[in-house]
Amino acid sequence: MVNQVTVGIIGAGRIGRLHADNLRVMPSYKLKSISEAYMTEELVAWAESRGLGAVFTDGEAILNDPEIDAVFICTPTDTHASWIERAARAGKHIFCEKPISMSSAETSRALQIAKEAGVLLQVGFNRRMDPNFRKLKQLVQAGELGRPHIVKITSRDPQPPGEAYVLSSGGMFMDMTIHDFDMARYLMDEEVAEVYTRGANLIDPMFGRCSDVDTAVITLTFTSGAICVIDNSRQAVYGYDQRVEVFGSQGAAVADNCRQTTVEVSTATAVTRDQPLHFFLERYNQAFTDEVAAFAQSIIQQQPAVCSGYDGQQAQLIAEAALESHRTGLPVKLSAFAEKECPEIEAL
Amino acid sequence: MVNQVTVGIIGAGRIGRLHADNLRVMPSYKLKSISEAYMTEELVAWAESRGLGAVFTDGEAILNDPEIDAVFICTPTDTHASWIERAARAGKHIFCEKPISMSSAETSRALQIAKEAGVLLQVGFNRRMDPNFRKLKQLVQAGELGRPHIVKITSRDPQPPGEAYVLSSGGMFMDMTIHDFDMARYLMDEEVAEVYTRGANLIDPMFGRCSDVDTAVITLTFTSGAICVIDNSRQAVYGYDQRVEVFGSQGAAVADNCRQTTVEVSTATAVTRDQPLHFFLERYNQAFTDEVAAFAQSIIQQQPAVCSGYDGQQAQLIAEAALESHRTGLPVKLSAFAEKECPEIEAL
Amino acid sequence: MVNQVTVGIIGAGRIGRLHADNLRVMPSYKLKSISEAYMTEELVAWAESRGLGAVFTDGEAILNDPEIDAVFICTPTDTHASWIERAARAGKHIFCEKPISMSSAETSRALQIAKEAGVLLQVGFNRRMDPNFRKLKQLVQAGELGRPHIVKITSRDPQPPGEAYVLSSGGMFMDMTIHDFDMARYLMDEEVAEVYTRGANLIDPMFGRCSDVDTAVITLTFTSGAICVIDNSRQAVYGYDQRVEVFGSQGAAVADNCRQTTVEVSTATAVTRDQPLHFFLERYNQAFTDEVAAFAQSIIQQQPAVCSGYDGQQAQLIAEAALESHRTGLPVKLSAFAEKECPEIEAL
Amino acid sequence: MVNQVTVGIIGAGRIGRLHADNLRVMPSYKLKSISEAYMTEELVAWAESRGLGAVFTDGEAILNDPEIDAVFICTPTDTHASWIERAARAGKHIFCEKPISMSSAETSRALQIAKEAGVLLQVGFNRRMDPNFRKLKQLVQAGELGRPHIVKITSRDPQPPGEAYVLSSGGMFMDMTIHDFDMARYLMDEEVAEVYTRGANLIDPMFGRCSDVDTAVITLTFTSGAICVIDNSRQAVYGYDQRVEVFGSQGAAVADNCRQTTVEVSTATAVTRDQPLHFFLERYNQAFTDEVAAFAQSIIQQQPAVCSGYDGQQAQLIAEAALESHRTGLPVKLSAFAEKECPEIEAL
Repeated sequence: MVNQVTVGIIGAGRIGRLHADNLRVMPSYKLKSISEAYMTEELVAWAESRGLGAVFTDGEAILNDPEIDAVFICTPTDTHASWIERAARAGKHIFCEKPISMSSAETSRALQIAKEAGVLLQVGFNRRMDPNFRKLKQLVQAGELGRPHIVKITSRDPQPPGEAYVLSSGGMFMDMTIHDFDMARYLMDEEVAEVYTRGANLIDPMFGRCSDVDTAVITLTFTSGAICVIDNSRQAVYGYDQRVEVFGSQGAAVADNCRQTTVEVSTATAVTRDQPLHFFLERYNQAFTDEVAAFAQSIIQQQPAVCSGYDGQQAQLIAEAALESHRTGLPVKLSAFAEKECPEIEAL
Repeated sequence: MVNQVTVGIIGAGRIGRLHADNLRVMPSYKLKSISEAYMTEELVAWAESRGLGAVFTDGEAILNDPEIDAVFICTPTDTHASWIERAARAGKHIFCEKPISMSSAETSRALQIAKEAGVLLQVGFNRRMDPNFRKLKQLVQAGELGRPHIVKITSRDPQPPGEAYVLSSGGMFMDMTIHDFDMARYLMDEEVAEVYTRGANLIDPMFGRCSDVDTAVITLTFTSGAICVIDNSRQAVYGYDQRVEVFGSQGAAVADNCRQTTVEVSTATAVTRDQPLHFFLERYNQAFTDEVAAFAQSIIQQQPAVCSGYDGQQAQLIAEAALESHRTGLPVKLSAFAEKECPEIEAL
Repeated sequence: MVNQVTVGIIGAGRIGRLHADNLRVMPSYKLKSISEAYMTEELVAWAESRGLGAVFTDGEAILNDPEIDAVFICTPTDTHASWIERAARAGKHIFCEKPISMSSAETSRALQIAKEAGVLLQVGFNRRMDPNFRKLKQLVQAGELGRPHIVKITSRDPQPPGEAYVLSSGGMFMDMTIHDFDMARYLMDEEVAEVYTRGANLIDPMFGRCSDVDTAVITLTFTSGAICVIDNSRQAVYGYDQRVEVFGSQGAAVADNCRQTTVEVSTATAVTRDQPLHFFLERYNQAFTDEVAAFAQSIIQQQPAVCSGYDGQQAQLIAEAALESHRTGLPVKLSAFAEKECPEIEAL
Repeated sequence: MVNQVTVGIIGAGRIGRLHADNLRVMPSYKLKSISEAYMTEELVAWAESRGLGAVFTDGEAILNDPEIDAVFICTPTDTHASWIERAARAGKHIFCEKPISMSSAETSRALQIAKEAGVLLQVGFNRRMDPNFRKLKQLVQAGELGRPHIVKITSRDPQPPGEAYVLSSGGMFMDMTIHDFDMARYLMDEEVAEVYTRGANLIDPMFGRCSDVDTAVITLTFTSGAICVIDNSRQAVYGYDQRVEVFGSQGAAVADNCRQTTVEVSTATAVTRDQPLHFFLERYNQAFTDEVAAFAQSIIQQQPAVCSGYDGQQAQLIAEAALESHRTGLPVKLSAFAEKECPEIEAL
């Protein structure tokens, strides 16, 4: 492992296969094996088409392989923490999809074990690698916008998920807004002090039946007094709406949506242009590539992860606080909430 | 007064003179007189240059003129309610600058008297007439965006006012955000149920000394569950930032800033375009003309005002509730608040 | 005439009335009288509604009025030169609509007489006053684009004129492109050396029957070697398309179309925005006001006109050369052509 | 060769290596070997890093390999025709970089031989695959713009090439504008009838010393009467300027430049956004991938090439005619010119 990281992927669902395809063509990786608890003929055929000889039903086989330097954990969320612990004990570096878990206490324990094992852990908040948002981050860091006062994040999905997904998702805040919570922390480089959630069920009564919301505006107050507002919807009929704005004492920067082409068509009835790129696979295509490239670089050059376990934990805590605010109708102070949820968090 | 309304202006400050210049060139108006308590040589010269023979120190002289059909109240806010009452009792139609007063009880009484006198009362929320926001309203009314779910209003001033202005302004919510509260109600055509304010003092400690804020994010929840979020700043260094977005079940519409020219310049160092129009006189130039044209039309055609006294009162109530939320750090339900502040509001 | 110019308008068609309405509300003007050879009841009513007592059938009555400082010549083109001569001999300053005439020789004589009479003459190339193009001019003059290499002018009408208009228009180059020829000279501040025209009849065979074109691309070569390309169409179904680009050694500047609002609407089927402003009355509304304001300022401050008789003559010459190029299919050198058409041009 | 094409690359310069890197990760290709007359240690190391065992100094070795289905000709232009002939005689399908040659007669002969050999020949006009221009093509083909009247192509390089390159380039029309000539034919799906060139040497006297131009506006007239205008510059200081517009009887479509991000930054001094992507490797990154994918698909599915030898020949003819027009200062009819240059062209 001088300039190449040998990896295995645990979990061969949509995101696991996406990573596999990206890893295959990157010289910094050697993808050796993959595991999937629910083996199908279709999966075997897929693995073969990618030249992946080793397909296991149990990820332990990957962890037991001494050639493996690192693993990608792409299993269902409720198994993430367990796999982190086992991978850490096997001495493998870890790339884990978000969220780390549904429970702050569980996350804390997993992170503690990874820390003790001395392995690198990166959480899959891929949007940090989006070229647009990365430019916002650079502008903030370079001080070109002065001191940030207001951050606005618009994050709307093109179409709502099905009931089964909603029931197992952990709710909109944990499943969807968690990306925006991470984005807010990433851009501000500062911690959130308070959360206020105004959620609603406006799109489909199914969400209400699942005790979930489909529409929300969440206000985050940072310790400096700066304010972030996030608006979410499970259904933007015109496509995946992903915009971010940072407003500061010296200026503002706005990242607009991406579109397939720049073409504008003018006719007798309308002037039209492309809708936003359809969904996350299209919009964050580059970011998915760049986050795995960054993971290899962190391992090889022994640098911190671009998105650490602590980052993953904080986003999860904010999501839990947002849900609490939604339930009570009141603002929630994050410090008190964190202490209640995972008293050992300070130990990290 | 068949096709022309004879008017007098009470108060010859900046806004009074702005209306005077607009009225002068409109065939639907005959501007006859103006009054100003603080008479100066400069004012006399100005009035002469506009061919305005009659300049009084007391607005009563205008109210006593039987030829006058309507008055424009452009005095300091703390005298608005009193002038409304006196003008109503004199049988004059009333165009009153915002806010109607600093006290809900006072506003209720003034509106009651105007109602009993049977005169038309229009409040100067000029932004309702801005071509961009009018188009948003039309899209909402025509159902082209479906049922509105989220409204986002960005409203930032180019430079902060001085301390004297801040002290007499009634605070940012009553002075500045009140426009946005009216815009939210105008676009949604629905009442606000709850207000949550997150304010901050980030620009100049002077605001804090005045017990005011300079930065805020306010969340309004409508009775239907739809959510509006407003972000305000007293200082956007790049110019007057006035954008509105309506997101609904069938689509979204975004009104961007206006700029002096469409020119984009590309050089070796940057690609640049114009900053937003500097401030409200430039941006809402057309709206100031259109609101006074609408007032004449309402009088001549005996139609309701485009922005009624009730609208003015509601925006004022929301501003008061926003301040209460800022003070307590908690969301404020508008119904309970309104009852407490002005129990007679239901009578209107 | 210290700070106010007393004017009469000769010709009360569309453009004459447009100027009348603009002049009426400008303090630098006193509009005293108007003349129109084809008197109608509708015209009398219009004049009355504007408070214009004096409506003559013969413009001579205006020229004979010693109070009149300046006249606006808004008659059919074939009478422009004659009115310029008569107004000049009467000592009146002259604002003349474009083109000055259909004949270079006739134009030269009229300009010679105006010059000898020492009156100010401004030609109505209103686009010089458009805020967008004015900004381009300022950028070029300030050297921000370096040395200009390529100028691109797109000029397309929303709908074709009728046959009667076409027959009396002098052809597309003299009627429509002449504005673009003036814009090219204005932006470059340099003379045209050669013209090449590629015209076509693609929209309506009527244009061909009238020996005219409805579509054209014209290449102008400047004496410095810089190149301008103009593309014209008599029918852009999406509206009035008026864009200009200047490309130079240090950068490029692009002036886009103007639109009624900035609103962008995104739905499940399309992302749309406003079409360009419909036609010249909407697009150049401000420019029409500004050019007459500039005329008064030039008279009062005894400064050169923003668009001189010489400018009018040059644009006319280029239009004639463009037609010659279209007829022969060959590039036409302007120097030889000018000498042939109006040998006395150097005398000016 | 059922679903995979085995290829060799003749010429390992910049473009040959670019293709190599694209081919390597495409499942439809097996890249077997590469040849380069000027072997260096650096090249050997590069080939090794790509896992390319076979690196020959003579392309014949590739042509002699019976496993090779197709070759990419990436050698200097003056050897293209010769390699086409040899590859065709060896029965290999051919992807040839543009232009095919510097001589129409030579090109005709090479195409004739390829035709007789029955091999597929694709010319590397990669811009046909650019997503923006492909959308323009689809709009034209679907009739959404009606009958095309005017096509405008802006094509400007970010920085001028060196003298050695200029001397061997065949001149700007053959080296650079040839892409635009192909784009014009591609979008119009029609042949060019006449060419008029207005060229200039405005950027660097070096171009003049090389008997070349650095700035040009070229007018193409199509057989239908539609007109295309191309403007070229060897130096746009703000980046690679690649815009195309199609204007037709039912509407217009404009393809703007591509930029790295959508971020717009507003400060007290300016509102800025990204410059265009730097040069062809960045802008046409996707197009380079897509053109080689299309070549494999054409071979596998036995379909015509997306850009045929005939297309390459026509663009070359137009370039020669453009140079002739520049030299004579007169428009050049393509039919007469083609006959003179390569009488056998009809035979294809």
